[in-house]
Amino acid sequence: MKKIAVVLSGCGHRDGSEITESVSLLIGLHQAGAEVHCFAPDIQIPITNHINGEAQGEKRSLLTEAARIARGHIQSLDKLHAKDFDAVVFPGGYGAAKNLSNWAEKGAQCEVNPDVKRVILEFHSASKPIGALCIAPVLVAKVLGDKKVTVTIGDDAATAAEIEKTGAIHEECPVNDYITDRESKVVTTPAYMYGDAKPNEVFAGIFGLAHEIVEWA
Amino acid sequence: MKKIAVVLSGCGHRDGSEITESVSLLIGLHQAGAEVHCFAPDIQIPITNHINGEAQGEKRSLLTEAARIARGHIQSLDKLHAKDFDAVVFPGGYGAAKNLSNWAEKGAQCEVNPDVKRVILEFHSASKPIGALCIAPVLVAKVLGDKKVTVTIGDDAATAAEIEKTGAIHEECPVNDYITDRESKVVTTPAYMYGDAKPNEVFAGIFGLAHEIVEWA
Repeated sequence: MKKIAVVLSGCGHRDGSEITESVSLLIGLHQAGAEVHCFAPDIQIPITNHINGEAQGEKRSLLTEAARIARGHIQSLDKLHAKDFDAVVFPGGYGAAKNLSNWAEKGAQCEVNPDVKRVILEFHSASKPIGALCIAPVLVAKVLGDKKVTVTIGDDAATAAEIEKTGAIHEECPVNDYITDRESKVVTTPAYMYGDAKPNEVFAGIFGLAHEIVEWA
Repeated sequence: MKKIAVVLSGCGHRDGSEITESVSLLIGLHQAGAEVHCFAPDIQIPITNHINGEAQGEKRSLLTEAARIARGHIQSLDKLHAKDFDAVVFPGGYGAAKNLSNWAEKGAQCEVNPDVKRVILEFHSASKPIGALCIAPVLVAKVLGDKKVTVTIGDDAATAAEIEKTGAIHEECPVNDYITDRESKVVTTPAYMYGDAKPNEVFAGIFGLAHEIVEWA
């Protein structure tokens, strides 16, 4: 049985992991026969109200909030090592751009969370597949840009241009599909980068990615 | 296009809606071609840590937390009226037994949130389908027990016996299936009442329920 690691960034698309993406990924990976383990950085994050988009003026534990998606089965990201897993996948949501990196603020000039960077480099060095959904491909682009990795975030021209500043290559992709960089073993799907996508369309793209990752792992 | 209402009880299975169940339902209803609107009571709820299961000693807005699942597209439950929709579905999670009712404390002697009770009675009176997942069938049993409604919560004997005290009938059902009471137009699936179920098994039962609800609505 393939062992796949999933790295969450909170619980909710405005300040953490996009929930529909994360759940679609867990369903897809299990349907493909994988054993799945969730991880998240053990850090405090500022909270955004998901009705009006305003800062709530409070902080919460990223790890404890991400546990809501993982039904409590989650470990701190510093425990994740590529030698123990066959692949790693990063769901999207602003958490990827605000908690796992500061891409939301600095774009291609961003810093990536040290454990996230270490994990991406470890899996890449071990030639193990790396998946990323929605905005999370920016993490892979930033860390592996010098390897000319190819990713998609859909069809948003401004974000695609920013990604290419890292050295990575951007390819357009519809919401219900995914793209594969066979050389770098990176699989990406745009998901809710299409803001008006329907849950079943997001699911279709992620379900495909999950099967590709597990077959390949 | 059929209009389906989904009633959430928070965000996370220990103090709100079970996330995988809620997302599976949204995917299934959209895949079946429905227009979906989310609702939740505008009340404050006590928060439970999803790693260790302990009370966090804080309260949050149920509606604002549920908005994380609904990506902000959610209304207060008092705005939900059966005349505007073709069916209603309640995901599970302890929120159904602690926030939408006090079943967790009082079982068959519980009180149901007045808006939840009103909504169930309105849809039933209008002969429109009512769906419920996991522990949420207890809400339907409590409100419609005198109609001898048939529901499932899986194979948990103690909960099934408590349900039958309401006058409702309990039928066993595996996680990847659902049962239909054709007379009362009630559709139920056990989902995470099987605590060791996998996300894809929960998805299978809920996907079937979603299609049954939309076809029937």
